Amino acid sequence: MKGEPFAAVDVIRAKRDGLRLTDEQIGWVIDAYTRGVVGDEQMAALAMAVVLRGMDSAETARWTGAMIDSGERLSLTCSRPTVDKHSTGGVGDKITLPLAPLVAACGAAVPQLSGRGLGHTGGTLDKLEAIPGWRAELSADEIAAQLDDVGAVVCAATPTLAPADRKLYALRDVTGTVESVPLIASSIMSKKIAEGAGRLVLDVKTGSGAFMKTRAQARDLATSLVEIGAAHGVATTAVLTAMDTPLGAAVGNAVEVAEAVEVLRGGGPSDVVELTLALAREMLALAGLGDVDPARVLASGQAYETWCRMIRAQGGDPEAPLPRPAHVHVVEAAESGTLTRLDAYGVGVAAWRLGAGRARKDDPVQPAAGVLCLAKPGDRVERGRPLFELHTDTPEAVSAALPALEAACTIGRDSDGDDSAFAAGDAGEGVTASRIVLERFAS
Amino acid sequence: MKGEPFAAVDVIRAKRDGLRLTDEQIGWVIDAYTRGVVGDEQMAALAMAVVLRGMDSAETARWTGAMIDSGERLSLTCSRPTVDKHSTGGVGDKITLPLAPLVAACGAAVPQLSGRGLGHTGGTLDKLEAIPGWRAELSADEIAAQLDDVGAVVCAATPTLAPADRKLYALRDVTGTVESVPLIASSIMSKKIAEGAGRLVLDVKTGSGAFMKTRAQARDLATSLVEIGAAHGVATTAVLTAMDTPLGAAVGNAVEVAEAVEVLRGGGPSDVVELTLALAREMLALAGLGDVDPARVLASGQAYETWCRMIRAQGGDPEAPLPRPAHVHVVEAAESGTLTRLDAYGVGVAAWRLGAGRARKDDPVQPAAGVLCLAKPGDRVERGRPLFELHTDTPEAVSAALPALEAACTIGRDSDGDDSAFAAGDAGEGVTASRIVLERFAS
Repeated sequence: MKGEPFAAVDVIRAKRDGLRLTDEQIGWVIDAYTRGVVGDEQMAALAMAVVLRGMDSAETARWTGAMIDSGERLSLTCSRPTVDKHSTGGVGDKITLPLAPLVAACGAAVPQLSGRGLGHTGGTLDKLEAIPGWRAELSADEIAAQLDDVGAVVCAATPTLAPADRKLYALRDVTGTVESVPLIASSIMSKKIAEGAGRLVLDVKTGSGAFMKTRAQARDLATSLVEIGAAHGVATTAVLTAMDTPLGAAVGNAVEVAEAVEVLRGGGPSDVVELTLALAREMLALAGLGDVDPARVLASGQAYETWCRMIRAQGGDPEAPLPRPAHVHVVEAAESGTLTRLDAYGVGVAAWRLGAGRARKDDPVQPAAGVLCLAKPGDRVERGRPLFELHTDTPEAVSAALPALEAACTIGRDSDGDDSAFAAGDAGEGVTASRIVLERFAS
Repeated sequence: MKGEPFAAVDVIRAKRDGLRLTDEQIGWVIDAYTRGVVGDEQMAALAMAVVLRGMDSAETARWTGAMIDSGERLSLTCSRPTVDKHSTGGVGDKITLPLAPLVAACGAAVPQLSGRGLGHTGGTLDKLEAIPGWRAELSADEIAAQLDDVGAVVCAATPTLAPADRKLYALRDVTGTVESVPLIASSIMSKKIAEGAGRLVLDVKTGSGAFMKTRAQARDLATSLVEIGAAHGVATTAVLTAMDTPLGAAVGNAVEVAEAVEVLRGGGPSDVVELTLALAREMLALAGLGDVDPARVLASGQAYETWCRMIRAQGGDPEAPLPRPAHVHVVEAAESGTLTRLDAYGVGVAAWRLGAGRARKDDPVQPAAGVLCLAKPGDRVERGRPLFELHTDTPEAVSAALPALEAACTIGRDSDGDDSAFAAGDAGEGVTASRIVLERFAS
């Protein structure tokens, strides 16, 4: 192309042949792709070369910077220190819901720009939209005002942030180029940095229900995220957390909101409470509020109060009854024993098939759809007693969801020595806080 | 997509992860790409995965078959045995011009569907179009009639042959996915088999002026080509030939036609004669005419007579003067000694810059443009005596062509013992037949 400093094919070839891309090449190719000078077919070939050849830390940091530069960068000024959190996505991961108001109640400001779910992991906005009246779209002025007033905002990211990432993300989805640590890390960080994050805690999930199936992959991603944060002057902490079994009992939309409210009122499943507190401590430490004890603030009711103000500020009614499903199907335990395995991915797929998630970007979701897990690994179950509740507005979806759930759980019979031994080893997984937070990475 | 047996992203992922593609996956992805159901961005990602992960013989044969099946397949019925030849492209490679009429004069029929040049190697059609009146486009009926009557046809391939290859070739060109043995081999063979070749001799070039720079790459390609031929029932012989220095003295369009005519009249550079005879022997052997001596037929004038009939049959006048350039620039030797190196790539680039080739697919070429090499490696040169003639209609192109030519040649001074020793070793390169035909592969 005339007037362009590079030819796309030369940049593609360099990465194909395993070379480092220069800062100039990366800056140009992302900008030219955003402008449409580099075509989708060229970016797809480059993305595949990156998947198979990799990028080093410096290339990945520059790639992230170029994606940030493709759009505007928010600058959230606030009287309180702001701190952001991002999760790589898990099953039953409603942690943002109690966490944002809790950290705000502790004295920090939490601007949490979120997305909608796609596939087996739910989206925070889809969950909050189960609350009558609540709206996800806020202007930059509304975000700033709510941050000052309430201290917590969970809302939709605007399309003007990192448009290169938006375009590339959609392209990677259809070209088999999603699975690449540098591309995943730069996508996450470009959005978060463009959103104005100055301090950032990343919850990197690992296990069957996570995007990163192995600990080694998750560790690579966590390292890359922290390195990108450091390169861009964003204080970043990443924690590796277990996602082999769902977080809490509720997987879906309204059911997860209800569980988050339980936590904010001082109850809720212990794993959700523990992870919420662990992430709150990391966020408070980054915000210079390390001396505030989030457990005390949670117990005081102040976090719940902040939740109610946050929901009201966005048009929602925190006291209104949540939508109920048209149909509830109960699955009973087929035998007595100990639940030795409850696979996060299988439960996520079941909730998705019941209508809680979407297959395509613009599909609607059912606010009332989801799964309630009535037992967690390590729990004793009795034959004929309820094991799962399936919630849906489309009863015909139950038959599609059941096989995923059945394959997701294993009951060790009392008489079965081997299984019991295995159960004992597995039981703690995801139940105690020490098993949830696996490792910690900080810049 | 509804009604499609596969999702493109699953096929891409399989190859990305180093798996074999199944026959069904390959057949579907090529067909769906031709239909537009698989997008350019998806095929680009798949092509990059193939470049970096490879395909085995069976995958490559199936890929070739799928590209053949994307269009029609010619069936040339002829009273004589037909045999086809393809070259992977070199500098000064006018061998088709004397070869087709020679093999026809020996009793076989040669249907030679050819392409136009792109980049530093010229195209056979571009060369023949320097002949006043000659036309490249023939109908299938015209091809059949001329084959029966003259025994040799060199013409343009129709767009109905292997349309998947046409589409994929253009895509690979802009996505850095050209350099892959399975993709190159399947592209060549799908066209040749769709053109109805039942017997095929492949001239696989290796060296600076060739697409395959190293002997190992060329050997891989030759092996793959022969394997694909065997899988599709096409008797195939591949010969590896040297392309470090241009073939003959002429590089361009009209200048190459003139040199081909010299050969057909019993003269011409020895390397062009030797390679023409070597390939003729391979073609005749495949056609069951191994007892005919092409050297005798060439010496008898019958090959030249067939050339004249072949050119006339396509509207050309073989007696008409060839176009002369508006401008001729002579480069003199800067010193006396022995020409130890004349690099094919450099000479090809110079001819291209003078207007003999095109940078983009639809650019016109200058019929009179080109380079005459007045010395070949091993020849003695005298300071101040002509070394090259540059032909062009656009004299301003000379200054762009000169640096490529200057970098392409090395003169070893008489006093320089080392250079002379090197010259002695290099001198034969490209000059004697035994140095041109390096290896032979047959099914």
